[in-house]
Amino acid sequence: MHFKVRAAAKEDCKDISRMIMELAVYENMPDQVKTSHEDLERDGFSPNPFYECLIAEVPDEHKTKDGKGIGTGLMAKVAQVGVEKQCVRLQLSVLDWNKPSLDFYIAKGAEDLTAKEGWHFLRFHGQTLDTLAKEAPKD
Amino acid sequence: MHFKVRAAAKEDCKDISRMIMELAVYENMPDQVKTSHEDLERDGFSPNPFYECLIAEVPDEHKTKDGKGIGTGLMAKVAQVGVEKQCVRLQLSVLDWNKPSLDFYIAKGAEDLTAKEGWHFLRFHGQTLDTLAKEAPKD
Repeated sequence: MHFKVRAAAKEDCKDISRMIMELAVYENMPDQVKTSHEDLERDGFSPNPFYECLIAEVPDEHKTKDGKGIGTGLMAKVAQVGVEKQCVRLQLSVLDWNKPSLDFYIAKGAEDLTAKEGWHFLRFHGQTLDTLAKEAPKD
Repeated sequence: MHFKVRAAAKEDCKDISRMIMELAVYENMPDQVKTSHEDLERDGFSPNPFYECLIAEVPDEHKTKDGKGIGTGLMAKVAQVGVEKQCVRLQLSVLDWNKPSLDFYIAKGAEDLTAKEGWHFLRFHGQTLDTLAKEAPKD
């Protein structure tokens, strides 16, 4: 089959926003999505963007949930972009019950650093982030 | 006591590199440090930098290992910079045996997402990263 992986454009932000929500629903945490497509447009397409994004363009007849190498193609392209920019690591976080994704990444050679080295993942957000920010020393 | 938190300059990269190694030694993984101070200079001080960094300037007489609010000052400044840029999350990873750091972050209001939601931390690096990159579809 044919599909194309390309850099996202500003016009893709509504679709990216929809896919972020679809992922969050799958992960049972739709209430955690606070980012609108306007935020994505501002953060990804200003002079010094906060993120880059890749899009897989898939012909209509191949739009099924079967594996067609699209996931691998996207991951591999992210790795290629990283290697070209001299990055030495590609890191990601996965929910422990998301066995299909964990198996996929491990099969591709990823190390589970939580299992192997004991890394925990911590987050400040909402009120705790604001409170912490207010403790900053004056310039 | 007086200390100042300021944005890092290119001239700080040798000190930043030394502190990265000091942290890695504390974490029992000095062999994982692959980043030189030249890499830090290139990645942080080019037109579209990959990272930002804060430096705490501490008077000589206060350079002890006792808590003096310097760690909180640094963390709080990171939070402040993030909030100003409209970030909604501040995330970090901590080793499970690093009880002093875990306790510090939790006391400041961080949530342990590995314990609470089951997030695992995965990494591609070295040969697995190169192999993955080579699977990228052609443009």
